[in-house]
Amino acid sequence: MRDVAVIGIGMTEFGEIWEKSFRELVAEAGIKAIMDAGIEGEEIDALYIGGMSTGRFIGQEHVGSLAVEVAGLEDLHIPSTRVEAACASGGVAMHQGYLAVASGMYDIVVVGGAEKMTDVVGGEATNILASAADREWEAFFGATFPGLYALMAKYHMHKYGTTQEQLAMVAVKNHYNGSLNPKAQFKRRISVEDVLKSPMVADPLHLLDCSPISDGAAAAVLAPLEIAKKYTDKPIKISASIQATDTLSLHGRKRFDALPAAQHAAKLAYEKADIKPKDVDVAEVHDCFTIAEIIAIEDLGFVEKGKGGKATEEGLTALDGEIPVNTSGGLKAKGHPVGATGVAQINEIVLQLRGEAGERQVKEAEIGLAHNVGGSGGTAVVHILEVI
Amino acid sequence: MRDVAVIGIGMTEFGEIWEKSFRELVAEAGIKAIMDAGIEGEEIDALYIGGMSTGRFIGQEHVGSLAVEVAGLEDLHIPSTRVEAACASGGVAMHQGYLAVASGMYDIVVVGGAEKMTDVVGGEATNILASAADREWEAFFGATFPGLYALMAKYHMHKYGTTQEQLAMVAVKNHYNGSLNPKAQFKRRISVEDVLKSPMVADPLHLLDCSPISDGAAAAVLAPLEIAKKYTDKPIKISASIQATDTLSLHGRKRFDALPAAQHAAKLAYEKADIKPKDVDVAEVHDCFTIAEIIAIEDLGFVEKGKGGKATEEGLTALDGEIPVNTSGGLKAKGHPVGATGVAQINEIVLQLRGEAGERQVKEAEIGLAHNVGGSGGTAVVHILEVI
Repeated sequence: MRDVAVIGIGMTEFGEIWEKSFRELVAEAGIKAIMDAGIEGEEIDALYIGGMSTGRFIGQEHVGSLAVEVAGLEDLHIPSTRVEAACASGGVAMHQGYLAVASGMYDIVVVGGAEKMTDVVGGEATNILASAADREWEAFFGATFPGLYALMAKYHMHKYGTTQEQLAMVAVKNHYNGSLNPKAQFKRRISVEDVLKSPMVADPLHLLDCSPISDGAAAAVLAPLEIAKKYTDKPIKISASIQATDTLSLHGRKRFDALPAAQHAAKLAYEKADIKPKDVDVAEVHDCFTIAEIIAIEDLGFVEKGKGGKATEEGLTALDGEIPVNTSGGLKAKGHPVGATGVAQINEIVLQLRGEAGERQVKEAEIGLAHNVGGSGGTAVVHILEVI
Repeated sequence: MRDVAVIGIGMTEFGEIWEKSFRELVAEAGIKAIMDAGIEGEEIDALYIGGMSTGRFIGQEHVGSLAVEVAGLEDLHIPSTRVEAACASGGVAMHQGYLAVASGMYDIVVVGGAEKMTDVVGGEATNILASAADREWEAFFGATFPGLYALMAKYHMHKYGTTQEQLAMVAVKNHYNGSLNPKAQFKRRISVEDVLKSPMVADPLHLLDCSPISDGAAAAVLAPLEIAKKYTDKPIKISASIQATDTLSLHGRKRFDALPAAQHAAKLAYEKADIKPKDVDVAEVHDCFTIAEIIAIEDLGFVEKGKGGKATEEGLTALDGEIPVNTSGGLKAKGHPVGATGVAQINEIVLQLRGEAGERQVKEAEIGLAHNVGGSGGTAVVHILEVI
């Protein structure tokens, strides 16, 4: 297998972007990434695009072909593949793009992710998102994602003494980081009190414990590491790209205080990259709900299982902490256009490793990690990126 | 890149399968393929599953994770990836599975495809399928797939003198082949008169010029060629796996008498396999409508452009012809559960190359080709398989 590097990144602003269609978002992210990589469209050998439920959000499947038409690359007839793994669609697109380059069949591969979620009527987005859970045995009986993650939160609180205030502190931190990110959906700083006073969605998760419904797209350009320097002075090596699965249903899961797929992916990723969790300088993790970030930093080995709430309270994951987590604002504040999220995480890590993250730059960041989850943990993808 | 072989195949019957759910179809095809390969579930390193619009047909996205749960493989945490490229979802899953093995990262990869289309109310299936066309500029204005392919048929008839009778002969041939395939949806033999007397769907396409709405699933097990003999006495080599794209929209296409993506994929596939079209002993092509088979055999170089209708009339593609096409019955008679089709084509070619195709066996078949198309030609995948 060949080593693979990221040579370009690009993304749109995330948010309620009424004035841009799905295809305009895809085009904008793609063009930015291509320009960042300094390549011509003709150099592209393959495309991947992550999208969760384009069929239901915008009535359009077959968005691999759409991306080629949008990019004006139809005369090249290059392969373009849509992949879908619920909210991990972007991370899975990254893994498949990585494999495509690593295989030796393709050199320059553009990986994108996109979702246009705000064009459906109120409530319908939550119903569409529930198609990432087990439709027959969960969603059909009324379970939604806030409900499923609330169950995990209750269990974590019960087992480890995690508090509502600690959950809220995840949101407070990520909104602070979001206030430093021009592309974030929410740039407003909030307090623990704001979170606790916000409406209850699914006990114990308040509105401000939940990531939003968003529009947006992100892209990254991959190349074999051996030729990456031809394109950029700052190629970022993909030291590990691991995709894992678990049961679709939460009730089928072996444990509820962890996502075993994420633990598995992290373990293999650390082995592949030959690093320890403490070597990670900056991480983007899948904080679809505040409890998800607490479970994530435990699953990734940044802290012991059960200590995620306490560690958050003590500032371990703050911008000036030992392992800054979700410097972009995370899904919580940057926004969560589900298909785009995994690729947007890669965008943030690359910015940090290049030293281009502006006000939210982590000092001397050399190793970064991205953790992307689908559903209640049915899919998990972990990438480790390194400055070379 | 490593060479890749097919070491096992399996599929369900295709048709209106009211008594089996999506997950039961997935399980059945997967188990059959695994048993055919003689492997244990624990040996599987990765899964791919093609599904076009599971979100709309059955309200379920994230079917990669579902496939793992259905297979009882959750404790392995192996990656499972859903890919979608409209009616080419199965072919694209094959290409991605091929890349996964070729890369060296995964050894045993199971590729599946599935669709459960008959559980939606009348007419809705056609609307869902239209999401494979350009929703904003085609489907929104009322274009459906019968309409889009009817436009191609009219143009082909106008330009090359192709007749309605020649179109009908494709259906007659494929229904005959289907009558020899126990898994086919339609086993009834029909006449040219039957086709011409069947209701007009979109001039010039009658009902019997169209493939049906179907339920079904298919799977194949891939392995590195170098270890394939460990598993089977009859490994089938994948000599070429090429995926290509074109515009999503038909109106954006450079020509209407061909699918340029299919022509491109075929050209690269012949080069990679180092063969000529005349070397192909048996082919499964994407006959979603009768005109599509005529265009396909031209695009694949079996006949000159414009001669597909005449060649069909003369029996070139019949079971006892020079290049038997759609020996399985094709999409037309075997059925067309869209996500499964590309993998079902591989099933048929492998059966033929192993000499296990029963009454529809092509004598001394050593090289087979599968041609899978998404939408009106926005995606095309060509596989060439060989006896070794």
